[in-house]
Amino acid sequence: MAELIGGYKRTKLCGEFRNFDIDSKVVCMGFVAKYRNLGNLIFIDVRDRSGIVQVSFDDSTPSEIFEKATKLRNEYVVCVSGVVRSRGSNINKNLPTGDIEIIATDLKILNEAEVTPFVISDDAKVGDVTRLKYRYLDLRRPSLQNILMTRSKITKITRDYLDYKGFLDIETPFLGKSTPEGARDYLVPSRIHPGEFYALPQSPQLFKQLLMIAGFDRYYQIARCFRDEDLRANRQPEFSQIDLEMSYVEKDQDVMEIAEGLICEIFNQCLGMDLKVGTFRKIPYAEAMENYGSDKPDTRFDLKIKDLSNLVKNCDFSVFANCIKEGGSVRGINAKGLATLTRKQIDALGEFVKGYGVKGLAWAALKPEGITSSFAKFMTEEQMSEIYNAMDAKQGDLLLIIADKTKLVLDTLGGLRCHVADTYNLYDKSQYDFLWVTDFPLLEYDEEEKRYVAVHHPFTSVKAEDIPLLDTDPGKARANAYDFVINGQEAGGGSIRIHNVKMQEKMFAMLGMSEEDIKNRFGFFVDAFKYGAPPHGGLAFGLDRLVMLVTGTDNIKDVIAFPKVQNASCLMSEAPSPVDDIQLKELFLEINKPQD
Amino acid sequence: MAELIGGYKRTKLCGEFRNFDIDSKVVCMGFVAKYRNLGNLIFIDVRDRSGIVQVSFDDSTPSEIFEKATKLRNEYVVCVSGVVRSRGSNINKNLPTGDIEIIATDLKILNEAEVTPFVISDDAKVGDVTRLKYRYLDLRRPSLQNILMTRSKITKITRDYLDYKGFLDIETPFLGKSTPEGARDYLVPSRIHPGEFYALPQSPQLFKQLLMIAGFDRYYQIARCFRDEDLRANRQPEFSQIDLEMSYVEKDQDVMEIAEGLICEIFNQCLGMDLKVGTFRKIPYAEAMENYGSDKPDTRFDLKIKDLSNLVKNCDFSVFANCIKEGGSVRGINAKGLATLTRKQIDALGEFVKGYGVKGLAWAALKPEGITSSFAKFMTEEQMSEIYNAMDAKQGDLLLIIADKTKLVLDTLGGLRCHVADTYNLYDKSQYDFLWVTDFPLLEYDEEEKRYVAVHHPFTSVKAEDIPLLDTDPGKARANAYDFVINGQEAGGGSIRIHNVKMQEKMFAMLGMSEEDIKNRFGFFVDAFKYGAPPHGGLAFGLDRLVMLVTGTDNIKDVIAFPKVQNASCLMSEAPSPVDDIQLKELFLEINKPQD
Repeated sequence: MAELIGGYKRTKLCGEFRNFDIDSKVVCMGFVAKYRNLGNLIFIDVRDRSGIVQVSFDDSTPSEIFEKATKLRNEYVVCVSGVVRSRGSNINKNLPTGDIEIIATDLKILNEAEVTPFVISDDAKVGDVTRLKYRYLDLRRPSLQNILMTRSKITKITRDYLDYKGFLDIETPFLGKSTPEGARDYLVPSRIHPGEFYALPQSPQLFKQLLMIAGFDRYYQIARCFRDEDLRANRQPEFSQIDLEMSYVEKDQDVMEIAEGLICEIFNQCLGMDLKVGTFRKIPYAEAMENYGSDKPDTRFDLKIKDLSNLVKNCDFSVFANCIKEGGSVRGINAKGLATLTRKQIDALGEFVKGYGVKGLAWAALKPEGITSSFAKFMTEEQMSEIYNAMDAKQGDLLLIIADKTKLVLDTLGGLRCHVADTYNLYDKSQYDFLWVTDFPLLEYDEEEKRYVAVHHPFTSVKAEDIPLLDTDPGKARANAYDFVINGQEAGGGSIRIHNVKMQEKMFAMLGMSEEDIKNRFGFFVDAFKYGAPPHGGLAFGLDRLVMLVTGTDNIKDVIAFPKVQNASCLMSEAPSPVDDIQLKELFLEINKPQD
Repeated sequence: MAELIGGYKRTKLCGEFRNFDIDSKVVCMGFVAKYRNLGNLIFIDVRDRSGIVQVSFDDSTPSEIFEKATKLRNEYVVCVSGVVRSRGSNINKNLPTGDIEIIATDLKILNEAEVTPFVISDDAKVGDVTRLKYRYLDLRRPSLQNILMTRSKITKITRDYLDYKGFLDIETPFLGKSTPEGARDYLVPSRIHPGEFYALPQSPQLFKQLLMIAGFDRYYQIARCFRDEDLRANRQPEFSQIDLEMSYVEKDQDVMEIAEGLICEIFNQCLGMDLKVGTFRKIPYAEAMENYGSDKPDTRFDLKIKDLSNLVKNCDFSVFANCIKEGGSVRGINAKGLATLTRKQIDALGEFVKGYGVKGLAWAALKPEGITSSFAKFMTEEQMSEIYNAMDAKQGDLLLIIADKTKLVLDTLGGLRCHVADTYNLYDKSQYDFLWVTDFPLLEYDEEEKRYVAVHHPFTSVKAEDIPLLDTDPGKARANAYDFVINGQEAGGGSIRIHNVKMQEKMFAMLGMSEEDIKNRFGFFVDAFKYGAPPHGGLAFGLDRLVMLVTGTDNIKDVIAFPKVQNASCLMSEAPSPVDDIQLKELFLEINKPQD
């Protein structure tokens, strides 16, 4: 049976004891992380979120306390009072508290524990399903504890920085209006308004712009957002963003400066880096696509894409020549130093690119003993030498070339360069690479819907110099939009917004929305712009992604206390679940399940 | 047409200009709050969230700029460049910036504005419906701007304090499991699991306790919570709470100390008060009920309830005597100095108490010229003098007495004392009164459901010394539960939780839950307690209520940027609203509207 704490107060957290505590009378509380009974000597490790400390029960321990200690088991919750002693020659150098131990003089067993379904250890091999079912136990692992502590630190740094910069923390509603555009909304049926629904926010976009119109000048919020999409790996139905908006800005740079300041604070404080505002690289979208085949390029490694189309358009290799003739392009990357790859390894790269839908991979390995290549035999020596030149190919390099429709070629090579760099360790994975991608296109043509859709969202402004393009060649108009990319992952993005009501209406119209449509979905929003809207812009960082990047995990579930799995369910609470008929009746709903 | 900012940067916010800015070249931006054209002189007030500054266009202003200024109207958004000048003898003492004005040298009209549906002013008489429809305009009012800025300050203070005290900011899920107990859940249909639902959290109660079991030690979150209840005034379907939980506590005091520290920080920093931890009064629940007829007594005024039952049980006034005979009680309050109330005013108090369901109000006014009373004629002089004595009645006082069932008497007098104090200004309304109500009963018997229900919630622990009562007289057992009351309003509350799995199961059973019920609704939660749960407790403050108290508003809509009205709809966005059939189909839902 559990005992009371009985007035004991913790001296400090377990992981905080050090040499200078020696001879002090102390109290620690926590979980038993390890238990060793040597007969006349019992050692336990006591664990809390700060780490572990060793507690010993020996012949100096009162006998009834020693007797109590023999009943301890892993994960029992204990309160130990005792005296700190040097471990002498038995120092554990792997442990911050390894110089000392606590010799127990009193022990309270605050709670017992059944044998846990798995050992609480970062080394334990346990399946994801079991871990997530017993999430409260998995969260006891030091690595997850540290990640969530870092997450808390990051949100605190964020709030301190934005508060200092004059941003107000303002909460926006969760029960909003459904304005489907892009992702699917989570709906919430109304009981008071039969047949009507709220929608959970996909982002606080409209509200934060309304706050600018309301004159709050600078707003931020760490906002939960919801998207009912089919989950891919590293997506969650609910996710958090650091959302901010500011008035009286008109250039990308105005917002980027604030965002860079935040990134510096987070990375410098959490990782001891020395980032500085104003030093982040900016790559225009077109250049990112051309060089890296991606709007979120990973530039920790070079592997730039080179356009070979002009060099090979008249060659005898029909795959290349025909591709160019049909309006496609031939591009490649130089995998520096990888000429030593085996045929099997190169074939695997061929399989990889087929996943993107291209027909195949042309390659040339510049080995010391001569060139091995899938296509060189169709080329003249001059053509090959032009290719080498264009790709800066030296002995030892492996050239990987693809011929297809340009968009597909870029996309594939964008993926291939990351795959090759990852597989063959072409870069230092502990390094960070930060950059802005700017000058995104405003619109892109959706072949399926036969209309333009917004690349960012319909509230993004067009670059002043590109306004005329809206009437002549809308697909070419560039937006005042910017994404922040860390290690090839989109960490955030934003834009300078439209603040002119006529321009906003024009934008909606360009997206194919009828006047009635606009009125129904965004009527109140468009109205708001009529009464004096300051120029404004903003940005949102994906908090989950940032925490992943800072803590170096590639599993989004690691950074969320109670995550959902791919089918959007919680294995611990078993949400979602059926509800009582009376609850449905009150909501005027009937379920119409699909036939099996 | 709107102009660009053109590279101007704000010198500071409008309300921040002072004497020491005189002769400086400055830039301000904001909304035109007032426009006066005197022919050769134009004055405008420029407003932002910090206040207003006067801008003048005079004969020193370039003529094309002066010309542009003639086009300004209220709520236009402007950027003004100019020089700060003393107003000389035309100082406006009511304005922090009243010593100076800005003589414009340049003006950019950043956006125009149609005539707003109401004047942006705290004095404008405008109906609530219009205000809420144009919430983004109403929010421009200085009073609402200040309230939301104070709210942002309060959340910052809260986070700083709790971070300093070692609490981790951990986010818990919004898409949870429906475990109906108490209020109605908002449900969210699942698309991936046909016929199943998530529930939006009524509070993060289960999750925060699981975080303690997971070893995070101290948790906090400013958490949005949801209750689908019929809204009363000052209730919102979504509301925010400062939610915290801490491990290794076992006495109320352990949590109360942290909570008091937070209250001190908030009130001292926001209102310049000098509150100190450990100085807050504690009133046990039973005493609060007995003296104030309320578990959240307003003690800014005395008006204590006195029990007169013993004094009047044998009197000739049958209303009193019969009431006691039937097991009820006779109690009253002494409305000090209100003997001068007219008969009409006293009758109004009689009407007021009838609203509670009592039959009437007995009263006695101790006027200088003699006693006027509704019941004195039935009493002996000795009986009356005993009553005066018990109620500390002096000349000039008005005694208000009620005879009925005890619970109803207390409830009614609890309401009456507040009503009288409010109506006749018996206290300083600018004063703050803080107190704890402790020792709440653990359970109360629900006559309708014929079972015990938890007064706080089923996770609250019973006082150690009252554990035996659970088996003998559960209604008498007191909980380790505490509410924090400010000015007669419940500002927060919490408890030391059950951490023993057997006790938790016993509690569920006492609430009439079957084993299957427990397993279905709280199975994962009960399981968690088996693997080592530290003793823990916590508390939540109602953030909206706190902000109301600090800013002195009695309208909850004032402290929420985008509030809902009583029927849970948003007059601005018109949420909730009908959705597309395709959205419903994807959720396997059909609407079954009530017949008109």
